[in-house]
Amino acid sequence: MSASSKLLVLNAGSSSLKFKVFGVQPFAAGIGGMFDRIGDAINCTLKASAPADLDGGKGRKWEIKIPAKDHVEAMQRILDFIKGNVSSAFAREVVAVGHRVVHGLEISQPVLLTDKTIGKIREAAVLAPLHNPPGLQGIDAAEKVFKGVPQVAVFDTAFHQTMPSQAFMYGLPYELYEKHKIRRYGFHGTSHKYLVEQAAGMLGKPVSETNVITCHLGNGSSIAAIRGGLCIDTTMGMTPLEGLLMGTRCGDLDPAAVLFIQKQLNLSVQDTDTLLNKKSGLLGLTGSNDLRAVIEGAQRGEPRAELGLAMFVYRVQKYIGAYWAALGGKVDAVVFSAGIGENSSVIRGLVIGPLKGMGLELDVAANDATVGGRCGDIAAPTSRCRLLVIPTDEELCIAEQTLQVVGFQNLTGATAA
Amino acid sequence: MSASSKLLVLNAGSSSLKFKVFGVQPFAAGIGGMFDRIGDAINCTLKASAPADLDGGKGRKWEIKIPAKDHVEAMQRILDFIKGNVSSAFAREVVAVGHRVVHGLEISQPVLLTDKTIGKIREAAVLAPLHNPPGLQGIDAAEKVFKGVPQVAVFDTAFHQTMPSQAFMYGLPYELYEKHKIRRYGFHGTSHKYLVEQAAGMLGKPVSETNVITCHLGNGSSIAAIRGGLCIDTTMGMTPLEGLLMGTRCGDLDPAAVLFIQKQLNLSVQDTDTLLNKKSGLLGLTGSNDLRAVIEGAQRGEPRAELGLAMFVYRVQKYIGAYWAALGGKVDAVVFSAGIGENSSVIRGLVIGPLKGMGLELDVAANDATVGGRCGDIAAPTSRCRLLVIPTDEELCIAEQTLQVVGFQNLTGATAA
Repeated sequence: MSASSKLLVLNAGSSSLKFKVFGVQPFAAGIGGMFDRIGDAINCTLKASAPADLDGGKGRKWEIKIPAKDHVEAMQRILDFIKGNVSSAFAREVVAVGHRVVHGLEISQPVLLTDKTIGKIREAAVLAPLHNPPGLQGIDAAEKVFKGVPQVAVFDTAFHQTMPSQAFMYGLPYELYEKHKIRRYGFHGTSHKYLVEQAAGMLGKPVSETNVITCHLGNGSSIAAIRGGLCIDTTMGMTPLEGLLMGTRCGDLDPAAVLFIQKQLNLSVQDTDTLLNKKSGLLGLTGSNDLRAVIEGAQRGEPRAELGLAMFVYRVQKYIGAYWAALGGKVDAVVFSAGIGENSSVIRGLVIGPLKGMGLELDVAANDATVGGRCGDIAAPTSRCRLLVIPTDEELCIAEQTLQVVGFQNLTGATAA
Repeated sequence: MSASSKLLVLNAGSSSLKFKVFGVQPFAAGIGGMFDRIGDAINCTLKASAPADLDGGKGRKWEIKIPAKDHVEAMQRILDFIKGNVSSAFAREVVAVGHRVVHGLEISQPVLLTDKTIGKIREAAVLAPLHNPPGLQGIDAAEKVFKGVPQVAVFDTAFHQTMPSQAFMYGLPYELYEKHKIRRYGFHGTSHKYLVEQAAGMLGKPVSETNVITCHLGNGSSIAAIRGGLCIDTTMGMTPLEGLLMGTRCGDLDPAAVLFIQKQLNLSVQDTDTLLNKKSGLLGLTGSNDLRAVIEGAQRGEPRAELGLAMFVYRVQKYIGAYWAALGGKVDAVVFSAGIGENSSVIRGLVIGPLKGMGLELDVAANDATVGGRCGDIAAPTSRCRLLVIPTDEELCIAEQTLQVVGFQNLTGATAA
């Protein structure tokens, strides 16, 4: 392995391919971006940006229309782009590829991709029909473009595998777990793992002694209860539909209502699934899936926007309380992260304000100032526990885990196409 | 109205009819019982018991096999039984009948039954197909047997109608609420109302200043968050399926899992509903729907029983925490009631024990002693809030509300068949 060795992190969606390059030694983030609308001959776009410390402190941004008919072609275009703009030797420099894979069933660690482990990801696609097939396309594309380079899958579910059975089991006939693997898995695990590690650093405690409630609030949102660095519960369930109110997902719902809707509206199973995943949440309640627009609407006094905002906040509060109890009241910090958690001081204020009677107290000025990717403690000195804002970095976490799986010794033997 | 005036409270199930007689002046509980297996020519049974202060301090119990082909015949048999054993003038003494009706949609008060209000109950049966039709049979039976006597419906949902929209709305397209009335209603409302009133008395506070978390834990279980005497949230939802783990009901579940089960097991909507309502919960997990048997199994070290017990307890803890947050940490008492809550010091100990870090502390001796219908405070003096055990009495609460609706002046004009 040379000083120019690179790691490539990929996160494939159904018609998108996000990428980020990392230097290995020293370990550092480099160029990253996204290929969007793959398969759309007219609108297919590659956006990328290089961090400010590249190119002599200037940083750089690109937005280019290039067609790509599928993920393999998109991967090839990304490679060509990096070779042309950043490093002509890039294809030879890539020593490992790390993939974000949504569903890993009961796999608790990142895994080196082999025929066997790829088979497991295919198997998990039964439970994650929307999410795992794109991940497999990303893996296939990287395999074709970077022949022979070791690849690693990092699962969104893995961090949550330490949940005890009382938290991950549903109240269903036991054989539905045995035969059909129906249980709570949880998602955003890479983010929650990153957040507790960062929080431990900020608190000056070992991760293994850190108890936190991590709120990953974005277009998809989830909260995790973490005791001694290990997840003990999380709001998302067998799928990412359960829990908080999200952009287009309903979150918690009486299971009987699912059947009632299906019957009353005469919908198929598939159409009901689409209704709950794509047409519900903030979108279904307010007409917009964007919480910023909902907040603005609420500020203008629009009743539906007020309702959507109040519901979003209330569910976060209820889960903070539920996990407060799950952690037996021993909580070092509540952590806010992801698009909404990092940037919306309004939401953080609405969530924490009414919890003063539980001992949670915001420093209003610190809350207002900690936005736009800043990291900080926004609790008042008198607060019973810390309130941290931590920008999440799933790519970094995937890169670190990929390195751990591949190991430095293996990297030296890698060859790239 | 004379000193012998009586109120009759009825609670009709699909093949059962529970009854309880109350004296009006003074207001006092009298004989009560249950007609079970209506329509079963061989096993149809009437059980009844008179309180100890009747019959010169002896009390009395009956268990008689009498066939009744339907609720009307059962009602007539109950009348004949009371006339034969308690008061020959009973038919003339009944001045009002109060009915427990499960689903009242958005009706917030008990109502005098008229063609119009009965129509509302029929309408609500769309949402409560298992529960409202028996209630209507009970109403029909009482109407036929006690002709012209005013009847009142007391709804299980009514007390929860003070929930704010952020608690009662689901994250679904808004028109599902407008057109199909899909929202959280909550059940066991008569019990939760009774519990907060009793708790206020024990706490020496006006109901309007009493904040409690009431845990009605029985074969069906629900918890309510009550602020200033008014319900602000509850665990059961559009139907009694949502929330805690119950005898045969699954409680909270990823809505996507409902659809996945349906697809994987190739079930109809109706069969899926039956699976979730009748074959899940403790029964599905452990083989028994009886928590006492599950506790015994867990004490013998049976893994499934241990799981079922742990899940039951954990969900209660999570909702206590969630409602702790919903009440902003201002909680006067956590109240335990109904079959499990009143009698299982084991469950109360398992629920409260790990919450010491939240300030909740049991007095172990008081907990062990407060069983079998006893009322008491089982909190240690150092506990942050009181922990009360209160035997629930839904019939008493229905009788009181029936009296309020009918009014004493109206009672004098009543005639009975």
